[in-house]
Amino acid sequence: MQTPDLSTVSSALEALEETIVSKLIDRAQFRHNTRVYEPGRSGFAEEEHVSLLDLRLRFQEHMDAEFGRFEVPEERPFNTNLPEPKRNVRVRETGLHLDGYNCINLTPHIKDSYLALVPCICRPGDDGQYGSSVEHDVYALQAVSRRIHFGAMYVAECKYRQHPRKWGALIAQGNVEGLWEALTRKDVERAILARVRDKVARAQSLVNTKVRHTIDPEVVLRYYRNHIIPRTKEGEVLYLLNRR
Amino acid sequence: MQTPDLSTVSSALEALEETIVSKLIDRAQFRHNTRVYEPGRSGFAEEEHVSLLDLRLRFQEHMDAEFGRFEVPEERPFNTNLPEPKRNVRVRETGLHLDGYNCINLTPHIKDSYLALVPCICRPGDDGQYGSSVEHDVYALQAVSRRIHFGAMYVAECKYRQHPRKWGALIAQGNVEGLWEALTRKDVERAILARVRDKVARAQSLVNTKVRHTIDPEVVLRYYRNHIIPRTKEGEVLYLLNRR
Repeated sequence: MQTPDLSTVSSALEALEETIVSKLIDRAQFRHNTRVYEPGRSGFAEEEHVSLLDLRLRFQEHMDAEFGRFEVPEERPFNTNLPEPKRNVRVRETGLHLDGYNCINLTPHIKDSYLALVPCICRPGDDGQYGSSVEHDVYALQAVSRRIHFGAMYVAECKYRQHPRKWGALIAQGNVEGLWEALTRKDVERAILARVRDKVARAQSLVNTKVRHTIDPEVVLRYYRNHIIPRTKEGEVLYLLNRR
Repeated sequence: MQTPDLSTVSSALEALEETIVSKLIDRAQFRHNTRVYEPGRSGFAEEEHVSLLDLRLRFQEHMDAEFGRFEVPEERPFNTNLPEPKRNVRVRETGLHLDGYNCINLTPHIKDSYLALVPCICRPGDDGQYGSSVEHDVYALQAVSRRIHFGAMYVAECKYRQHPRKWGALIAQGNVEGLWEALTRKDVERAILARVRDKVARAQSLVNTKVRHTIDPEVVLRYYRNHIIPRTKEGEVLYLLNRR
């Protein structure tokens, strides 16, 4: 993507909605299983101070790092101290103007807000399916993180290119509030929220509810409204302030 | 599941359909990328004789083994020589009568038929997204494998319990053809195929085809008819012949 344009970027973001929705529905097939989020209860003998989720996330990202995942701008890791890629990864010209991608890493917030979402999509209780629960947590976290970081970086770059003087002035002033306001497009946000809600409903419309647990489309709409969209915008502001 | 009953098992199999469908749709967002299936082209310096998919599958299963995945009967690995779990995994009473789960391991066939499916769901060509392609291949393979091995073991056990004398006689004769015939229920198979086709169509019905690639429901129906269902039945026969 040598010269990103906003409609290409928006399409990519739209395409990630199905992925997020399906990962959340997959996670919701298991109970809340709070135990997997509690430090010291992972069942790993030598890991006394971490939760099963944190361990799974670390193992997964260790593997992913070796495969080169984090060479891609929008794939920001939840962990630090990851290994270098073992693979020659061909990274295409991104068109981004950043000295390092990790100046935009919103994963701590992403994890917090995801953990707050889990009890709203899963039934309460414990079904003993700890391994599957954290496996699906990791896939959901990665999908949400990809959407937020992709949006943050590429939407901001596209908008900057459309009006470099306008954005340049706000950046020079370090005017965070002004940047936030200029980045906000209520009509676009409303359209995203309605589309996401419809996708959640549609994805489950043929489901036999005796065998699959369904999730409330409004819950996902709220998660988008209160977390995914504002977090993306926060990332856009960060991008613009770090643009070189 | 101390005493599995056929309707519980069928429900679990039905619930896995959504998972398989969503994994296939996710994979189809990337091109065929044949390079990832060719030995010696993984890009890993020290791995000259394997494909990127085989490497990813090995790394993934290594991690999964440490988390205890393969302690679960229906989770059969594609690799051998995997590590022991690092976690205390609580395995519930399965109700299965097997001396070891790996006497039913259909993963070589599952991999072959999946690789034949990929060009039927993905657009041809190479988009450079090798890491993402094999990541999704692995998730799809695991979902298909879980469905086949779960069905093989639990459906066979349930059917055996309903008529132990009838099955006992066929088993004593080593009558593979007779077992296969007795396990076949054309009406049930037809219902599964129609349901799967409808789920593929429904899952994609709201998709913006400008931004997401869709897959042909008939292709998934054929994959179920020609591979998933017969492979499950093959596993049922194996289960019965190995039942202790």
